[in-house]
Amino acid sequence: MSTYQNQRIVLATSPDGELKPSHFRLETAVVPIPSEGELLLETIFLSIDPYMRFWMRSEKSYNEPIKPGDLIVGATVSRVCQSRHPDWREGEWVLAFSGWQHFAISDGTGLRRIDPAIAPPSTAVGVLGMTGFTAYAGLRNVGRPEPGETVVVAAASGAVGSAVGQIARIHGARAVGITTGAHKLAYVKDELGFDAVIDYKAHDFAARLAEAVPDGIDVYFELVGGPIWDAVLPLLNTYARVPVVGLIADYEARSGERRGTDRLAHTMGQIMGKSLTVRGFIQTEFADEQLDDFLREAGKWLADGRLRHREHIVEGLENAPQALITQLKGGNFGKMLVRVGDDVSI
Amino acid sequence: MSTYQNQRIVLATSPDGELKPSHFRLETAVVPIPSEGELLLETIFLSIDPYMRFWMRSEKSYNEPIKPGDLIVGATVSRVCQSRHPDWREGEWVLAFSGWQHFAISDGTGLRRIDPAIAPPSTAVGVLGMTGFTAYAGLRNVGRPEPGETVVVAAASGAVGSAVGQIARIHGARAVGITTGAHKLAYVKDELGFDAVIDYKAHDFAARLAEAVPDGIDVYFELVGGPIWDAVLPLLNTYARVPVVGLIADYEARSGERRGTDRLAHTMGQIMGKSLTVRGFIQTEFADEQLDDFLREAGKWLADGRLRHREHIVEGLENAPQALITQLKGGNFGKMLVRVGDDVSI
Repeated sequence: MSTYQNQRIVLATSPDGELKPSHFRLETAVVPIPSEGELLLETIFLSIDPYMRFWMRSEKSYNEPIKPGDLIVGATVSRVCQSRHPDWREGEWVLAFSGWQHFAISDGTGLRRIDPAIAPPSTAVGVLGMTGFTAYAGLRNVGRPEPGETVVVAAASGAVGSAVGQIARIHGARAVGITTGAHKLAYVKDELGFDAVIDYKAHDFAARLAEAVPDGIDVYFELVGGPIWDAVLPLLNTYARVPVVGLIADYEARSGERRGTDRLAHTMGQIMGKSLTVRGFIQTEFADEQLDDFLREAGKWLADGRLRHREHIVEGLENAPQALITQLKGGNFGKMLVRVGDDVSI
Repeated sequence: MSTYQNQRIVLATSPDGELKPSHFRLETAVVPIPSEGELLLETIFLSIDPYMRFWMRSEKSYNEPIKPGDLIVGATVSRVCQSRHPDWREGEWVLAFSGWQHFAISDGTGLRRIDPAIAPPSTAVGVLGMTGFTAYAGLRNVGRPEPGETVVVAAASGAVGSAVGQIARIHGARAVGITTGAHKLAYVKDELGFDAVIDYKAHDFAARLAEAVPDGIDVYFELVGGPIWDAVLPLLNTYARVPVVGLIADYEARSGERRGTDRLAHTMGQIMGKSLTVRGFIQTEFADEQLDDFLREAGKWLADGRLRHREHIVEGLENAPQALITQLKGGNFGKMLVRVGDDVSI
């Protein structure tokens, strides 16, 4: 949708517990005008990612929290609609971090050019972008699966999970996915080619998972947290590796809501007793050194059909909050995107 | 004490919760006679180590649990009192794994010769043995402190903790110890030369720890578990490393006793948000490749006074259960040993 107004979505109030549309506010501003050395970017796609919910928490971690009044941040697939910067031309596709708004000013810092001839531009925030690279970097640097080893990932039909299993298989490992719903289960097994897939809503989930990993688990790629961890932990082999990238099931726990048995001592005891490696990471840690390798390798895998992906596209900036809420509930099927603009310049 | 009887201590009942003398039983057997190719070892010192309590748990981990009726296992400093093995002479000192008994038969497998000219034989299970090597290997392979980084360790006056801090300082890092009691606090600071030491029983422990690590914590060498972790976690820097070798405060938690807030999600969130590495290990993982390096380096540090140590010696096999109980309560001061025999052969 072309517009002369810059619509933007900000955080209205900090969520504690379940995220709701009322935590967001749509604001309208004028479209900013680039100064010399700057460019005006129009957002075409927003990347919707669970980490956004994590950033809305008040705990400080690798990033400043998103506070009430702040623009919701996030990666975008954008087009240059005005350039007063010598390196950029109008009409170019770029990977940007404009956040949830139609237009943003940039001085070029951090932008990456997207070549639409290689793959559809939207893949730059998906299978050839942050989510694909997260899978790649987590396996290359932390998981390090050997041929014949078993790699388990939950949210297996999602953007990161689907890439984890497929890349693990490319390296000769067995891939076991965890998801739920007939369509997703079939997709993971039949279209993505995982060796096995388990429905985490099955009443005998833990037993089925154990059956699917007769040689134990060597790599558990942690994207979800929550109760799935309890089923995975006893199956981890000595020296197993656990890249920790997401804990989607934990993000919406209310502060003070975590009553019950303290599972920390048991987990630490297993880390000690089985010589486990549990390693958190953000893909940016490895981007400088490994992003080019990834784009070259993953581009090839994508072209020859070994790396498949799926997009879940929601239309309209105003629907971005609901898209994130849906994703946090596991309601998306594939990489979640919001289409914010078409490619008609203003 | 010389004897023709082989006294041995076995587990009477599996402990759940606090370890008590009644969990043990002293048994008497005849001294075994070595066959051709075997040797008879007399135990001079037992090494008392917290992992023994961990092995009495019913959960399987890196080792089979110690079950009722089983000999309590453990490393020993022993002497060869009869040899029918071509490689061993009577009177030689050896590092063995005879367990809690006066005499044991060995075919030589796993024995290591101790040279009493280098250091007192008891150091072979302490500063020049398992505990020293645990500190060395955990820092070399997991902690990897850089000069100027901050290394924190609890149980800092103990066999592993004291070596962790001193080796960290040899590598140019700052060492901050956690312990309690005036004598131990003074020992860690004044004799071992840690940069700072904090009393974990101080009412403002968390605040004092934060003050002692103005640049945050880069390596937390985990020996104790329990509530100290809650004070350490918020102080860990991005990319901090946590070798996990002991969780002494957790060993005696009763099954089902861990009520209250579930701290796991918070810890996992911090692992993710700060890109932490949490890595369990047992020193044997690194022994083949690095034990010779360690003995060479640590022998030098010991000789030139840069690596100090302290032994806490309890007299008599029958007092071994109480020695372990004392250690689990933090009542030892230095490497805990039980003197079981003198060096008079039978």
